[in-house]
Amino acid sequence: GLAAPAIAQSQPKIQWRCTSSFPKSLDTIYGGAEDLAKYVREATDGNFDIQVFAAGEIVPGLQAADAVTGNTVQMCHTASYYYVGKDPTYALGATVPFGLNARGLNAWLYYGEGIDKLNEFFATQDLVYMPGGNTGTQMGGWFRKEINTVADLNGLKMRIAGLAGQVMEKVGVVPQQIAGGDIYPSLEKGVIDAAEWIGPYDDEKLGFVKVAPYYYYPGWWEGSLALCFFFNQSEFENLPENYKSLLRTASRAANVEMLAEYDYKNPQAIQRLVQSGAQLRPFSQEILQACWNASQEVYAEINGQNAAFKSIYDSMMAFRAETYLWQQIAEYSFDTFMMIKQREGALAMQSGGQ
Amino acid sequence: GLAAPAIAQSQPKIQWRCTSSFPKSLDTIYGGAEDLAKYVREATDGNFDIQVFAAGEIVPGLQAADAVTGNTVQMCHTASYYYVGKDPTYALGATVPFGLNARGLNAWLYYGEGIDKLNEFFATQDLVYMPGGNTGTQMGGWFRKEINTVADLNGLKMRIAGLAGQVMEKVGVVPQQIAGGDIYPSLEKGVIDAAEWIGPYDDEKLGFVKVAPYYYYPGWWEGSLALCFFFNQSEFENLPENYKSLLRTASRAANVEMLAEYDYKNPQAIQRLVQSGAQLRPFSQEILQACWNASQEVYAEINGQNAAFKSIYDSMMAFRAETYLWQQIAEYSFDTFMMIKQREGALAMQSGGQ
Repeated sequence: GLAAPAIAQSQPKIQWRCTSSFPKSLDTIYGGAEDLAKYVREATDGNFDIQVFAAGEIVPGLQAADAVTGNTVQMCHTASYYYVGKDPTYALGATVPFGLNARGLNAWLYYGEGIDKLNEFFATQDLVYMPGGNTGTQMGGWFRKEINTVADLNGLKMRIAGLAGQVMEKVGVVPQQIAGGDIYPSLEKGVIDAAEWIGPYDDEKLGFVKVAPYYYYPGWWEGSLALCFFFNQSEFENLPENYKSLLRTASRAANVEMLAEYDYKNPQAIQRLVQSGAQLRPFSQEILQACWNASQEVYAEINGQNAAFKSIYDSMMAFRAETYLWQQIAEYSFDTFMMIKQREGALAMQSGGQ
Repeated sequence: GLAAPAIAQSQPKIQWRCTSSFPKSLDTIYGGAEDLAKYVREATDGNFDIQVFAAGEIVPGLQAADAVTGNTVQMCHTASYYYVGKDPTYALGATVPFGLNARGLNAWLYYGEGIDKLNEFFATQDLVYMPGGNTGTQMGGWFRKEINTVADLNGLKMRIAGLAGQVMEKVGVVPQQIAGGDIYPSLEKGVIDAAEWIGPYDDEKLGFVKVAPYYYYPGWWEGSLALCFFFNQSEFENLPENYKSLLRTASRAANVEMLAEYDYKNPQAIQRLVQSGAQLRPFSQEILQACWNASQEVYAEINGQNAAFKSIYDSMMAFRAETYLWQQIAEYSFDTFMMIKQREGALAMQSGGQ
């Protein structure tokens, strides 16, 4: 039961700033940092106070990790693949083409030495990495015209970034780097032919359905996307142990929270999008196979010249083979049966005593 | 940066006892309570100290919730469907036949009013409920003989509990309640013909493969299983707000942690089991369909006489229809492609610069 209050040994008052790579309008992904800050603030009676800033308030969204390395801010919330220009190894803390789905990624990160191996690399960048959210499998993006064959990709101007852009280039796409707010006008004017963003809930806000109605899936380059927290290494090391542990706990909590929020909001958003005219289209097996082959070329090139990348990639890919073996059995067969029932219309209105 | 240590306003020294429904030998599922206790202890410099006791140390595993209601202990870690004998509504805090997979369940619990609705019911039991772990889709269990048709189920004596037992009874099975340690000898002697337990990692420890080698999937009665923490309501309400918040955060962290651990360990265990002679068998569509129909009868019976169950069930099932619509699109098509690659043998050894 309750005893008399004790004098705490180590709850120093600390104020930190966290810069997010995202605008507040992307409430689910931006919310990951707000969640962590809230959990930490509440657990410490406000003694450890993290203020979250939206992209652009302190530094632009794509400079968040630099601001942490340089100690402009103590921490950020970002997607580590934004920084593949510094080193492709950054991508492995977020997602890589034909990588792991959300459950596989968490399993590898928390139990398959993922976090530890990533932090060996991130230590060279003066960063400490913790997973901090997941979007689930993303959509493949919005296209102005249907694409059925690899030939249809030839010369296609698509807004797509990072390693996925490199893969797309090998199958004929002309990848474009365009900030979120500029995608819609570029699609509308035909400056680009296609654009990938995130998934139904976020994509809906940008209104792509009106100008590029063919909505392809899956986003094979983001079988799941891990968001992350980066902490400045010396700032983190200077924290008392209780605060370090609390950050680890709160980042796990923020991780499950974001995925649950996307998984709750996306089903409603996809239905609204279809009602608004979105034409759902699966990528053809021909296209998926060509992109798979291209991704193997990209990986071989990077692995041949980047030992840090190869070490982490090998670990992730060894687990990839195992998780997709096991997931076929119980999970996939259960999901398949439930999806058959969904298509039969049997899942609606089961509640009554009828 | 770091400022001078402040006097904490509210970190009282508290010692709690948590009784687990599980033995220490089931390290992953038992570990959920240890994880939460560790997170809380570390974040409070040991001021909030939760001691975890294995099943049987204070009360038997299936009396954990009663021990919390009666305030023998302040909290427990359990699967709420163990208590369907008191009220079938308890099942909805764990899993129900043909219910939600792990991602769907988390989405409904955290965002689809699941936790709030469950706590309206659990308040009547003097309990506060928080999700605290997930096993993923379980296996359908170990059978001494192959079963292909509904006729093969007739008279089959199977160790299976709760609502799933009621469903199985409608398709001819004779459900048996047998504690974990007694399952193996019962199978060996032929006292029972089949037994379900959890999944590869846990099932391997009990050695079922030697006496009942046909390993069926999926466990349609546990598309995922949420473990939970129950807190004695008045003990919880008496906590300072910072400790309440920390318990909510730590339970989220324990949730993601357990699922990641199962998802990491099961792939290796299923391979060892197959090497030891396990014969993997999917339930036939005929059997799944018959069990689906039987489950609808069971739900209709309960909904007709239990308003608390119906209210929560309706909420869960409304979301079930939505989540299995959305999951078909990006997630399922991505997973399917990756599983095709797994079957082709293309996922192994992708790392080299070859």
